[in-house]
Amino acid sequence: MAGQRLGEFEMIARYFAPLAADAPGAFGLRDDAAAIALPPGEDLVVTTDAMVEGVHFLLKDGAARIARKLLRVNLSDLAAKGARPIGYQLAIALPESLASDEWLGAFCAGLAQDQKAFGIALYGGDTVRSPDRLMLNVTAFGAVPAGTMLRRDQAQTGDDLYVTGSIGDAALGLETKLNHRLFSSAAMMFFDSRLHLPTPRLAFGQELRGLAHAAMDVSDGLVQDAGHIASASGLRAVIHADAVPLSLATRQAVAEDKSLLPIVLTGGDDYELLFTAPPQAEQDIAALSRRVGLAVHRIGSLEAGSGVSVSGAGGQPLDLARGGFQHFGGTLE
Amino acid sequence: MAGQRLGEFEMIARYFAPLAADAPGAFGLRDDAAAIALPPGEDLVVTTDAMVEGVHFLLKDGAARIARKLLRVNLSDLAAKGARPIGYQLAIALPESLASDEWLGAFCAGLAQDQKAFGIALYGGDTVRSPDRLMLNVTAFGAVPAGTMLRRDQAQTGDDLYVTGSIGDAALGLETKLNHRLFSSAAMMFFDSRLHLPTPRLAFGQELRGLAHAAMDVSDGLVQDAGHIASASGLRAVIHADAVPLSLATRQAVAEDKSLLPIVLTGGDDYELLFTAPPQAEQDIAALSRRVGLAVHRIGSLEAGSGVSVSGAGGQPLDLARGGFQHFGGTLE
Repeated sequence: MAGQRLGEFEMIARYFAPLAADAPGAFGLRDDAAAIALPPGEDLVVTTDAMVEGVHFLLKDGAARIARKLLRVNLSDLAAKGARPIGYQLAIALPESLASDEWLGAFCAGLAQDQKAFGIALYGGDTVRSPDRLMLNVTAFGAVPAGTMLRRDQAQTGDDLYVTGSIGDAALGLETKLNHRLFSSAAMMFFDSRLHLPTPRLAFGQELRGLAHAAMDVSDGLVQDAGHIASASGLRAVIHADAVPLSLATRQAVAEDKSLLPIVLTGGDDYELLFTAPPQAEQDIAALSRRVGLAVHRIGSLEAGSGVSVSGAGGQPLDLARGGFQHFGGTLE
Repeated sequence: MAGQRLGEFEMIARYFAPLAADAPGAFGLRDDAAAIALPPGEDLVVTTDAMVEGVHFLLKDGAARIARKLLRVNLSDLAAKGARPIGYQLAIALPESLASDEWLGAFCAGLAQDQKAFGIALYGGDTVRSPDRLMLNVTAFGAVPAGTMLRRDQAQTGDDLYVTGSIGDAALGLETKLNHRLFSSAAMMFFDSRLHLPTPRLAFGQELRGLAHAAMDVSDGLVQDAGHIASASGLRAVIHADAVPLSLATRQAVAEDKSLLPIVLTGGDDYELLFTAPPQAEQDIAALSRRVGLAVHRIGSLEAGSGVSVSGAGGQPLDLARGGFQHFGGTLE
């Protein structure tokens, strides 16, 4: 009954229960809890990411894209930890205006599409009323062989620092969204898709177990996140800006306006994998890159000390005005 | 620095990381994910409950009490599933006005107090900014021997229906809070504490495994939740209103005003355990009640059919105007 407001139980039965059909321990979302059985010898890996309307997304981004980004930012954390994804709990605080067949249908179609793409299922959650703002929370589960979860704090002196894919595309998408910065229409479409539909590097992450010393995904910005690995490991990260992989569109944008480089290096939402590995792993990492079909670049190293330094062309230190993107401080409104 | 606004990382390090000290796989909350190792032969049990300012609580309820209720409603679900609690993920969407030492200190003191009381630890989560309203989400983890999670859908024809503790106290607390209903001051203090600090029946729930056929906690209201067990099990629930256990304070309130009885029977937030068991389990359930020190009453039975019927004194059907409490529809504002 399109346009009608739905009650909680009807909403769960009609929209969310079908998303749990492939989760044997979810009992059709008709219980208070789900049961998850792990194969012997595996650890559960668990991660949580919340998204708030007006802070992390706008309703005009579209229900399906909001749903898919919500899953993907959580899956990206699992990827960075080397985990095989299993499923998720979803909490949704829903304003009455969105308790409609139209909005929920689109939102759950987005979830269904990415569940299928990444081989996960909904296990449970909570649906509550929000008096105004849409808020979403996912706790995602994955598994790794016991004791092998990739961590931030295991980088070693002399490790190389690597990053997958390309950096800065989402930050330039945000520049357009927030500051109405114009690029070519093809570039803007690309940046927008990188901002709203990041690709969790799941296959690559799982193969990094045993190869990388430390790993995380780039969500706060490359420089800040390199700082997180450095700080957790008690080391200093050195990044060569020239070695940071840029997409063709971002390379062109930076060539035309050098002031974009700090935004590219410190902007958030890349959801690439940032990891460290010993020099002798270089060949294996190159082989992994070819096997998975995902570019990986060596962008620096870990050294004794603390903090992060970024050097530009010719090796002189680069002064980055921005300290990195903190979701907590930002707003889209 | 009291009164100063805190950044996300400072907030995590100062307030939330100490709550994760006893969680070996939480890595001091300095990673993107936590690792949880389960003993062989156990299933993970996972449950999620969200709370929204103005819908589930008011800021004037107090930061510590909000925190403790948030944990307790989740622990109550674990109790009802027969699970041993392990820990939780916390997502908090925090308005800037609450990003203070005073508020966060009190909130985390409440979490710490109940973590200790119930033997759990914080494993991870997310801290994001809310432009206005405080929203909280917990995903709690527990464990059961594989395949033994108590469910709603396993009630059998001829089962007795039982409930722990007393019913309706929280509903009368909500009557005072929402409708300014007055009771004696001792009664109002008791109702208020039952509303804001429910007691998860963890020890009792774990001993129900193998004894009960079906179980859940009473959060939506006794009648509605009995309906959930009935509907999930394909049966009819019959409740004898006279057998429903009432506290002394609630019994007095209902004696003075009969119109409170439907509120007591259908109001939410009791967080007692509602379960079914075969007649031959009666002695074991009585023994369990004595051993754990928690009252349990037989209030009805499960029969062929569907729905819920409630009979009053003398056996005539009781007409309950209210259909049960749906958090999704309610508001405290």
